[in-house]
Amino acid sequence: MNGSQHDYSFMRRAIELARRGRFTTRPNPAVGCVLVRDGDIVGEGFHPKAGEPHAEVFALRQAGKRARGATAYVTLEPCSHYGRTPPCAEALIKAGVSRVVAAMVDPNPQVAGRGLSMIKQAGIEVVSGVLEAQARQLNPGFISRMSRGRPYIRIKLAASMDGRTALANGESKWITGADARRDVQRMRLSHGAVITGAGTVLADNPSMNVRPEQLPGSVDLPAHWSQPLRVVIDGQARLRPGLQLTEIESPVLLASTQGYPCDWPEHVACWQGPAVAGKVDLHALMAELSQRQINTLMVEAGATLAGAFVQAGLWDEIILYQAPKMMGSDGHGVLNLPQLTAMSQVPEFQFKDVRRVGADLRLTLVRAES
Amino acid sequence: MNGSQHDYSFMRRAIELARRGRFTTRPNPAVGCVLVRDGDIVGEGFHPKAGEPHAEVFALRQAGKRARGATAYVTLEPCSHYGRTPPCAEALIKAGVSRVVAAMVDPNPQVAGRGLSMIKQAGIEVVSGVLEAQARQLNPGFISRMSRGRPYIRIKLAASMDGRTALANGESKWITGADARRDVQRMRLSHGAVITGAGTVLADNPSMNVRPEQLPGSVDLPAHWSQPLRVVIDGQARLRPGLQLTEIESPVLLASTQGYPCDWPEHVACWQGPAVAGKVDLHALMAELSQRQINTLMVEAGATLAGAFVQAGLWDEIILYQAPKMMGSDGHGVLNLPQLTAMSQVPEFQFKDVRRVGADLRLTLVRAES
Repeated sequence: MNGSQHDYSFMRRAIELARRGRFTTRPNPAVGCVLVRDGDIVGEGFHPKAGEPHAEVFALRQAGKRARGATAYVTLEPCSHYGRTPPCAEALIKAGVSRVVAAMVDPNPQVAGRGLSMIKQAGIEVVSGVLEAQARQLNPGFISRMSRGRPYIRIKLAASMDGRTALANGESKWITGADARRDVQRMRLSHGAVITGAGTVLADNPSMNVRPEQLPGSVDLPAHWSQPLRVVIDGQARLRPGLQLTEIESPVLLASTQGYPCDWPEHVACWQGPAVAGKVDLHALMAELSQRQINTLMVEAGATLAGAFVQAGLWDEIILYQAPKMMGSDGHGVLNLPQLTAMSQVPEFQFKDVRRVGADLRLTLVRAES
Repeated sequence: MNGSQHDYSFMRRAIELARRGRFTTRPNPAVGCVLVRDGDIVGEGFHPKAGEPHAEVFALRQAGKRARGATAYVTLEPCSHYGRTPPCAEALIKAGVSRVVAAMVDPNPQVAGRGLSMIKQAGIEVVSGVLEAQARQLNPGFISRMSRGRPYIRIKLAASMDGRTALANGESKWITGADARRDVQRMRLSHGAVITGAGTVLADNPSMNVRPEQLPGSVDLPAHWSQPLRVVIDGQARLRPGLQLTEIESPVLLASTQGYPCDWPEHVACWQGPAVAGKVDLHALMAELSQRQINTLMVEAGATLAGAFVQAGLWDEIILYQAPKMMGSDGHGVLNLPQLTAMSQVPEFQFKDVRRVGADLRLTLVRAES
């Protein structure tokens, strides 16, 4: 770890600023910047939204001439490329800062380090890696897309204590309580895309959108929020227009292994992908979503599709909402996996977070540390 | 609520003392007593073990002549009957205490209030109900047996996140980690009896006993601890001598609807009870265990027997150890219930306690407050 006590304290402030954009910057990362001269903050900024200036630009504007000789704290390496705006690395050099402290380098292996190099070459002191772990938590999706070519994937499940998602006859409304369902709305808001299977769509006709009036009271809906891309895996192209999901005018992507014999509204895109054993190849679909700049994906699916994601290793967190109910062994299971014959084959996780949400529990599972 | 701030504080101490006997007093309740004169504690005591003196006797011995004019704090109404010892109510009167503060009256409806009446009739001030809720938590089993004629029943379950207790082929060692299994040993130690079904015994040949070396490090094993009564429900009298359970020399009770064609070792008792649909009537068995002075019962059974206890309403807590694993929908379920056809029929609980035990979770469920 590099950096002094002061560096940690100002970087914490920069991370705090970055968080303000966390629901709205996608596909860009959330970034914060603080400019400090003689121990005083002279400029602050965060990236609010794709198309708007970067965090550094806001901080430099606020600081004006006081940026000269200042230290710039940035939660992500300043950009080095000419895009919608000139590179921030150049802006910091021109403003005359004397030191740049970055929490992490750009996770895109194609560009990693170039922004900091540019600054170093201008004779400015550069420190990197201050509060890196905390800064990485701001943008797991952006980092995943840049470094792995796939979104950061959270599989959301809801079940009774005995692992049931529906009664034998399919009835399932409601297993979890109102607070847990509001929390699911919050999850949708914070993901670039939600995905389900055609079976669920045909059975339940869900809308899969964010309904602002159903968000928890604690969520302060930002002005620039947007609906997640709603993705349906429909291998055999069984869906037809007229569903709630396709009627609501926000983007939909239908992923199939074959073409549709019908026309869809303009906000519905169709993607024809490769098949594996007759089903849409999940790895190819994840690459496609990455191409479409989806950083974070929430899986809201039945036991078969959720099980397929787990089987393919395409997951980062499993979020299990657990209701204090027992539905009995005849009910539907939560996750279908190929039949296991030894306990050593059982996938092991660890709890990242355990908390109560109203009358229910929300358990966050991640891969067990090996 | 009666009692002053001082009363609460001394009663808290009496409850603390009572807790020292909680693993060893059965079938008696755990009871604590504090004698206070002029604001100073002059005597303390707790009931250590059936056959030993009651809490009041120890406190009076310690106080000697200083008991005169003192206030006696007792976590349970002093006894009024001549048993192995003379009644404590009489002892307090003879010692000349001037005030008696009880947390709760005796839960046995046959005797409730007699001890306090005896004291009142001697002209001594009596206050009752100070920290009653906390005092009741000392002895849920004794209270249940006295007031309901059945033990306090905890159903212990262990499952994966998706509610599975074994793979399709029956393999189940181990689902939970070492810490959770140690915690189960602690549970056995604190129950008067553990119960399982003949199917589990025939399949796994378990010993069902407390193995002191496997207790958690935090448990200070008391000198007078004893093994729980091990009860097996064996409706069709299928068990035969030679099992681990019956070879280990501590009490066993085999509950059947018919006689055994074999002789059992001396520590194995057989009880022939009424049948309901060919199975041992659980209500009758609970009454029998109550007769045998079992205060607390731990159910360690498969999905069928555990489900039968839930169905019969014969449970007070469900303790679910949950391992961060997914075993898939082919695995064995945790609880068999009759097939439900509407969500309104689903038994609803609430979380009394949620905590991590090593890598696992321990969830304590009680009936939902209506």
